[in-house]
Amino acid sequence: MRKILLIGAGKSSSHLIKHLLDTSQSENLHITIGDLNVDSAKRLIGDHPNATAIHLDVFNSNSRSNAIKNADIVVSMLPARFHIEAAKDCIVYKKHMVTASYVSKEMQELDEDAKANKLIFMNEIGVDPGIDHMSAMQVIDRIRDDGGKMILFESFTGGLVAPESDDNLWHYKFTWNPRNVVVAGQGGAAKFLQENQFKYIPYHRLFRRTEYLDVEGYGRFEAYANRDSLKYQHVYGLDHVKTLYRGTMRRVGFSRAWNVFVQLGMTDDSYTIEDSANMSYRDFVNAFLPYSPTDSVELKFRHALKIDQDDIIWDKFLELDLFSAEKRVELVNATPAQILQKILMDSWTLSEADKDMIVMYHKFGYEKDGKKHQIDATMVVVGEDQTYTAMSKTVGLPVAMATLDILNGKITSPGVQIPISKEVYFPILEQLKHHGVAFKEKQVPYLGYNPLNL
Amino acid sequence: MRKILLIGAGKSSSHLIKHLLDTSQSENLHITIGDLNVDSAKRLIGDHPNATAIHLDVFNSNSRSNAIKNADIVVSMLPARFHIEAAKDCIVYKKHMVTASYVSKEMQELDEDAKANKLIFMNEIGVDPGIDHMSAMQVIDRIRDDGGKMILFESFTGGLVAPESDDNLWHYKFTWNPRNVVVAGQGGAAKFLQENQFKYIPYHRLFRRTEYLDVEGYGRFEAYANRDSLKYQHVYGLDHVKTLYRGTMRRVGFSRAWNVFVQLGMTDDSYTIEDSANMSYRDFVNAFLPYSPTDSVELKFRHALKIDQDDIIWDKFLELDLFSAEKRVELVNATPAQILQKILMDSWTLSEADKDMIVMYHKFGYEKDGKKHQIDATMVVVGEDQTYTAMSKTVGLPVAMATLDILNGKITSPGVQIPISKEVYFPILEQLKHHGVAFKEKQVPYLGYNPLNL
Repeated sequence: MRKILLIGAGKSSSHLIKHLLDTSQSENLHITIGDLNVDSAKRLIGDHPNATAIHLDVFNSNSRSNAIKNADIVVSMLPARFHIEAAKDCIVYKKHMVTASYVSKEMQELDEDAKANKLIFMNEIGVDPGIDHMSAMQVIDRIRDDGGKMILFESFTGGLVAPESDDNLWHYKFTWNPRNVVVAGQGGAAKFLQENQFKYIPYHRLFRRTEYLDVEGYGRFEAYANRDSLKYQHVYGLDHVKTLYRGTMRRVGFSRAWNVFVQLGMTDDSYTIEDSANMSYRDFVNAFLPYSPTDSVELKFRHALKIDQDDIIWDKFLELDLFSAEKRVELVNATPAQILQKILMDSWTLSEADKDMIVMYHKFGYEKDGKKHQIDATMVVVGEDQTYTAMSKTVGLPVAMATLDILNGKITSPGVQIPISKEVYFPILEQLKHHGVAFKEKQVPYLGYNPLNL
Repeated sequence: MRKILLIGAGKSSSHLIKHLLDTSQSENLHITIGDLNVDSAKRLIGDHPNATAIHLDVFNSNSRSNAIKNADIVVSMLPARFHIEAAKDCIVYKKHMVTASYVSKEMQELDEDAKANKLIFMNEIGVDPGIDHMSAMQVIDRIRDDGGKMILFESFTGGLVAPESDDNLWHYKFTWNPRNVVVAGQGGAAKFLQENQFKYIPYHRLFRRTEYLDVEGYGRFEAYANRDSLKYQHVYGLDHVKTLYRGTMRRVGFSRAWNVFVQLGMTDDSYTIEDSANMSYRDFVNAFLPYSPTDSVELKFRHALKIDQDDIIWDKFLELDLFSAEKRVELVNATPAQILQKILMDSWTLSEADKDMIVMYHKFGYEKDGKKHQIDATMVVVGEDQTYTAMSKTVGLPVAMATLDILNGKITSPGVQIPISKEVYFPILEQLKHHGVAFKEKQVPYLGYNPLNL
């Protein structure tokens, strides 16, 4: 039996565990699932004979190294900052490792040791990062193999609510860490390339510089720029493209309304609000508006943001109960972002029946035979329920498949890596298709940003 | 002879040196002026017999401690971060010290040592901080002594160009460190108190939340909020006031136009622009606007900021040559803020004939005999030329006067301090009047923000 140690049985591990259990007979696997919360691990296992749940504290070096010692491969689904202790043990005990997280500096520093021990440390093999890398590289490699020259790459991902569960004016619910949604885009200007020009958008303009994306069967979306669109430029071999843009997808209208929170300063996470615990939602909003003994918070809000009463954006704020004098913040020493998160969670928390949805959209522009071409590739995955979500599926399946491919010797190149080589992405994308995680490609007229070549 | 060591003979030391030299006979003073640049020190001394210029590197502990050992009192006019080495030597050699800078954490930590050695470490005794403290505390103490209860304090200062030298559309030139002007307001939300409500303004809204101030004989000004209006609340004894606001003054219209730079992201100092050295001013502006193969930078700029062509704000940007395709940035690896500073320095640098101006405006609201009252106090100081500026006068004179008052035993309380006690401010404000640095007070109807007490 091949022994897999999975550390972390959180929200995004359900499909991962299911896939490993489903293949455990044919693949001859035993899966040990370690978590601080043994019950959540047990619930996902059920009474499957090929799995065991254990209590595991990744900061307890004794129990951690014992568990790792006994495994053939280690999968860490913990938050990114907790991987490194397990990773160091994997070097010591000569075990492969798989994570869905961005490669941290500390992880990258293990590259030499991993290579020296012929170990595969596969990272960024969830959905974003993960499926975005694999699906992009598959098309980019194909275009190149076919004699094309890449000139444009744009890539967008959104974690959204499925159409059948989309029942609020924002067309949004929290399908992932709400905190990350509230502070998204902060920490510096967004930077990208358009037709060989570097462009910069400060945070407070980010949600006013969106672009539209139409996905067949799912209608129109909008996207705002990610912080660093150029992060994978070199890794993808796109050093000479003219346009490089990565963004986050929302339903149309979300960003214009979200921008109001940004403008007022409600997404700020850098300071705490005085006496936040005893504030009403209305008091919170009022703290960002000029004092008046007579004017209502509503009117000051509409005036400050120049919102007409019959503008649909206004109804979005009313829907959130933003001006409630009864609802209390009840968070001690909270930042604006923490308070806003609480207000939004009242309205945007998925109910048990709600389904989530992952949407991905790539644009590949290239030159071939003296002409410009473009391929658009889109993927939509809808979740089943609140356990088997689209998020957990698109994160967990690639992790599970990479784990098996490493065990089965299909992935062979050692070192700290991300899934951009054909050896890795090709078999995984093929397998994903059988699970309904597939891209639709379409040859479209090249648009770029300068279609007439002026 | 009493020996004064002055470290730093920069732009703001001219009046300070002049005042010390002017009083050196009657006060029996010898002034040693130490600077890295001996020539600039010599120029300010001329052939005065009671002063000597020496080369002094404050980071050379040997020459520094020798100079301090030989003095009776040390005045540091270096940038704030350089005071601490001299301050530590002042403890060792038991010398008093005077600076015009904010009390740093390191400086505050010397308080006990200073007191144990009966040393006076006077700080924040320039104009802002300095004259603002003294003039505010004088009125606040008087209101209290008279049985009044403070309910409102607002305080505004501006370093501006004098009306006779005001010849551009922004009504602004750099009279102080240009860098500080470009990044002013950054680093967190502005916080203040209005009618017992805490209010917060994020940086990107700061320049749209101004208020007007009229100064007799000088017309109308506007003010935007400082970062922390509450900094001196406790120190001034204003723990229970309802309104507390500190701001920076500009001529009307400045902030609305400056806001455009903020909105575009041109004041950001946190990242560098690609290939900044080879950019034209036009390229720089274009980096913050969407790509277009056809639309002009001007039109994209006006569209993004919703500026009509016949709006006066538009002429302000044209006046700066902001859209020049010829003028080059010529700064390697520069941040947006550094590039903007360079562009502005082309237009806003004072010529030798230009005069600067310091304006200060305090509002004191108080209750007495069951009624609400208000005193407005204003000060305007106009410079003589580019050496004897209003800035150097209002910074340097209080420093010189405090130095003499310490030498003459008029200031006696030891420790690290700022000029808020009557012992310190009263004689200095009296002396300043003879130099034309005086406040006009006016009893006005109490306004506050809730005049009808609704």
